[in-house]
Amino acid sequence: MRAAVLTRFGGPEVLEVREVPDPVPADGHVVVRVTAAAVNNTDIWTREGAYGTAEDPGARSGWRGDIDFPRVQGGDIVGVVESVADDVDRSLVGRRVLVDPAFYDDHGHPVGLLGSEADGGFAERVAVAAARVHDVSGSALSDEELACLPVAYGTAMGMLERGGIGAGETVLVTGASGGVGVALVQLARARGAQVIALTTEAKRSRVAQAGAAVTLDRIQPVGAALARTAPGGLAAVLDVVGGPALPEILPRLRDGGRWVIAGAVGGHTVSLDLRRLYLHNIAVIGSSMHSPHHFDLLATEARRATFRPPVAARYDLADIHQAQREFVGRNHVGKIVIRPGTGR
Amino acid sequence: MRAAVLTRFGGPEVLEVREVPDPVPADGHVVVRVTAAAVNNTDIWTREGAYGTAEDPGARSGWRGDIDFPRVQGGDIVGVVESVADDVDRSLVGRRVLVDPAFYDDHGHPVGLLGSEADGGFAERVAVAAARVHDVSGSALSDEELACLPVAYGTAMGMLERGGIGAGETVLVTGASGGVGVALVQLARARGAQVIALTTEAKRSRVAQAGAAVTLDRIQPVGAALARTAPGGLAAVLDVVGGPALPEILPRLRDGGRWVIAGAVGGHTVSLDLRRLYLHNIAVIGSSMHSPHHFDLLATEARRATFRPPVAARYDLADIHQAQREFVGRNHVGKIVIRPGTGR
Repeated sequence: MRAAVLTRFGGPEVLEVREVPDPVPADGHVVVRVTAAAVNNTDIWTREGAYGTAEDPGARSGWRGDIDFPRVQGGDIVGVVESVADDVDRSLVGRRVLVDPAFYDDHGHPVGLLGSEADGGFAERVAVAAARVHDVSGSALSDEELACLPVAYGTAMGMLERGGIGAGETVLVTGASGGVGVALVQLARARGAQVIALTTEAKRSRVAQAGAAVTLDRIQPVGAALARTAPGGLAAVLDVVGGPALPEILPRLRDGGRWVIAGAVGGHTVSLDLRRLYLHNIAVIGSSMHSPHHFDLLATEARRATFRPPVAARYDLADIHQAQREFVGRNHVGKIVIRPGTGR
Repeated sequence: MRAAVLTRFGGPEVLEVREVPDPVPADGHVVVRVTAAAVNNTDIWTREGAYGTAEDPGARSGWRGDIDFPRVQGGDIVGVVESVADDVDRSLVGRRVLVDPAFYDDHGHPVGLLGSEADGGFAERVAVAAARVHDVSGSALSDEELACLPVAYGTAMGMLERGGIGAGETVLVTGASGGVGVALVQLARARGAQVIALTTEAKRSRVAQAGAAVTLDRIQPVGAALARTAPGGLAAVLDVVGGPALPEILPRLRDGGRWVIAGAVGGHTVSLDLRRLYLHNIAVIGSSMHSPHHFDLLATEARRATFRPPVAARYDLADIHQAQREFVGRNHVGKIVIRPGTGR
């Protein structure tokens, strides 16, 4: 089969589209013929080895440490079950499935990801655990829309659940035009929260369309605007940006507020005044992807199709470098989707 | 009556022991004759105005902002109900009570404290809301032991509850010989957690006596010792110290671990690598005192007397400056208690 293979840490040149052996399903596994697979930040970070380690923040590392090259990337997988291992229910064959890309520890914490700790979906076929495929045959969403969900909307669902976001609460979403950002806006809105979104001037209307009640230009100082639009204080900040905006936004959280952080594209090392946390019962909640329970909630949303994830662009597998260039350029809103089964 | 009155922000000289009018109970309030009142960090910080503000970390401020001087300090109050307002149940008169010193917002977050936002217990009498007194007439603990509980053990109970600390979990307690530190050791032990305690060489045996399974000298690098004593990682760090030890301890938390912080005597501005939080589902949970529910749990422990809070020293009200000097000297383990009703 054809696959996009990461050969080592490095620039775009270390990602090669080439022929590789078809996957064989191990016990408890199925093989999915991939119809759509979306691009995520983690693809870029893993290629660059940009996660660092606890011991050496500058070390080249995947998010859980070393990567076993060559590695097929791609954590967002939608497709059709093509074959199953002998110990797996054969009635799965032919089903349209949404794949939960996570590997979990005994406590439901993700400790691995398809495309990082095992081969992923930038390929014509992928082997996954039968327990991780969710039947979405009846969903009104297209395969490309469904492919937007696992990593970005899974991450967003994890943030909303770990932050305990409820109806009627006012939340700030940073980086609201990105994959996780749009997911946060749509999922927070779906549970009745009021969303204030930080984005760029050029993307404000598209973020409002996704469901943000208020959009703010992120290059302006936001402190005064937040005091005006959320006079009672923010219940939560749902953040994938981190970086220098933190000291200005933190004082806008109300007592008991939650700063949920799932990424730090704006800068990962921040200076924090611990007094602002402990005097006001404020929690900074690191959120890594989702738990099995969170993914169940997401699969339910996918079947209900209560919202449509915006697909910004579609590419054939052969054009994955172009897809990643567009992704890194960040002029899009929504997800960029690869179609491994077409364009051969 | 006689009281220790804070006249403005400043050094020990701004705290004056003098005659003041007796308190009169407003609607819903009772007057408690104070038999014991313990010394806390917050007394010193409030006197110095050392809390800073969100806008200006160097500003002189109480923990919630301005202080209405003159102010009687003292948040740890045990005594006997002497009189009640007309609208309060008269059967409270004569009861031995433990006073919850907090004022709460509608969500149960503390927004004020006796001794800071209203007059406290470094006085012969204090007026408090009837809803905030807890009958401990039958407790086997002495008044002086009970006076150790509200602020330090209330804060510790808030930390354990907000951090979701359960039986069988391994937790690190920093500053384990201080008021909140000893409280954390005793309360964590009481719920079946395994306690590793950071303290000074001179205090290790007294901290072990309070219930720590392992004691570590805090001036040594602790990373290697923690890897050895908690090979599966820490479930939580219960921290009142903050400061420079954080980068060494944070990597020792297991996935899903909680860093619960309720003070920062070792330094309040820290540099944090957000990746270490979000890649491992680690939360930094700011914890301010307790909620009404937390104090109910504490009053239940006080009635059961499942452990005895160590009383390090006793002083008459006239000797409060000497008590605060001993407190600031930090050669004690446990609480320093003022007896306002004696030594006149």
